[in-house]
Amino acid sequence: MNVRVLSPEEASFEHSPGQDGDIFFANLVDERHGGPVTIGYGRYWPHQRLQETMTVGDVMVLLEGALTITSGGEARTAAPGDIVDMPKGETVEIRALEAGALTA
Amino acid sequence: MNVRVLSPEEASFEHSPGQDGDIFFANLVDERHGGPVTIGYGRYWPHQRLQETMTVGDVMVLLEGALTITSGGEARTAAPGDIVDMPKGETVEIRALEAGALTA
Repeated sequence: MNVRVLSPEEASFEHSPGQDGDIFFANLVDERHGGPVTIGYGRYWPHQRLQETMTVGDVMVLLEGALTITSGGEARTAAPGDIVDMPKGETVEIRALEAGALTA
Repeated sequence: MNVRVLSPEEASFEHSPGQDGDIFFANLVDERHGGPVTIGYGRYWPHQRLQETMTVGDVMVLLEGALTITSGGEARTAAPGDIVDMPKGETVEIRALEAGALTA
């Protein structure tokens, strides 16, 4: 079926290009599948930090752990079940707390 | 900040138009916010079922419970952490199991 159910167990996590921290991503759906979006998981080890300016909009759902999101001088901590909406063009720092984090 | 952290606690769940089952949606970001995507949560009570033909592509992340997704004659059950990719144009049946479900 063209409808897909994806799970973290079938994902192969890799270092993101240009990142040297213990942050890993696994893309399960991307432009190779002909769709307009990239879908995958991210795994952050404890205390890892990622800063980026969004070249595309990204919506992240926190599945496990906790992340502090800082943008425009404001910080907010996300818990499991929270959705982080990061529009194109925004500069965002994502920092994992003690427990690390798994995101979709 | 333009970056937003959304949580299920701040969502107000409502019946989806045209639905009379115990399935509720809460949109937190939509075209009113100027972005290209709608972001929200869905809550399915036990054994509720939703059938639709996708007028836009939808990516659903299962946060709690279990859902059986049927499309093109194939069925697969999604567990928490699973991502369901439902491209535009596909006909999908989403059925909640015993525990109901919370989706992002």
